[in-house]
Amino acid sequence: MRARDLLADFPVVGLDSPVIDAARLLAEQDLPGLIVVDHDGSPLAILPGTEVLALAVPAYCQDDPALARVVDEAHADGFLRALSGRTVRECLPPRPRELRELPVADPDATVLELAALMARTHSPLVAVLEQGRLAGVVTLQALLERALAG
Amino acid sequence: MRARDLLADFPVVGLDSPVIDAARLLAEQDLPGLIVVDHDGSPLAILPGTEVLALAVPAYCQDDPALARVVDEAHADGFLRALSGRTVRECLPPRPRELRELPVADPDATVLELAALMARTHSPLVAVLEQGRLAGVVTLQALLERALAG
Repeated sequence: MRARDLLADFPVVGLDSPVIDAARLLAEQDLPGLIVVDHDGSPLAILPGTEVLALAVPAYCQDDPALARVVDEAHADGFLRALSGRTVRECLPPRPRELRELPVADPDATVLELAALMARTHSPLVAVLEQGRLAGVVTLQALLERALAG
Repeated sequence: MRARDLLADFPVVGLDSPVIDAARLLAEQDLPGLIVVDHDGSPLAILPGTEVLALAVPAYCQDDPALARVVDEAHADGFLRALSGRTVRECLPPRPRELRELPVADPDATVLELAALMARTHSPLVAVLEQGRLAGVVTLQALLERALAG
């Protein structure tokens, strides 16, 4: 069994998509994460659900639980409003990208390679690339189901 | 809106459960992770799906992608067999627990506190404790759905 046998179609978001639409896509389709693609369809970022959520949480609240606690309930309820009008591009944190391993595999990857990659990158989804283009996605769910059935 | 308004029941696994049953539970119920509880029902570990998967991936494969690659397809397909007969207790990695923040909140936590906690701990689920006992779980999915509707 190889990555190509586990591929599923997966919605992608562009850099200029509104972040709120990305969050809605994640919630409505119950996705484990999102793939952000460039204009030519090549994946730029693979964001587990927790990282999509992180786009909407002010940095000071992420760093210090006590600061999240002082925001009153009404304002806390509306925290996603901070995203309105903002694009995915504007919200992606500046990161030393070269230091981060993207959960990306080729279609020949075995289930063990995929599982190791998910474990190492803490990503419940892996983008499968064929000649630099997104061929599809393997989710942790799909991988476990097939590995347990085998 | 507070954690108590977002609570859902959630299956838990005990330390002496077979790990393979835990993996099956995750896959079959499409859960974002698992909660490992002590004999008295208090949560010992909250494992996102990727960490449940990590229990089954040999450490050398997680550390070095090249080593996962040399395992042939037939053996890779059967990687979960390594788990047979092993309990959750035997598979939980020894960790400096005191250094890790558990995604645990109290029933009064606001959605912003929950979101910040999920983002910070990379956990798509938060265990909500009431007087040290597990009152339920808030999933990233439930949180986003409610925050988007509000």
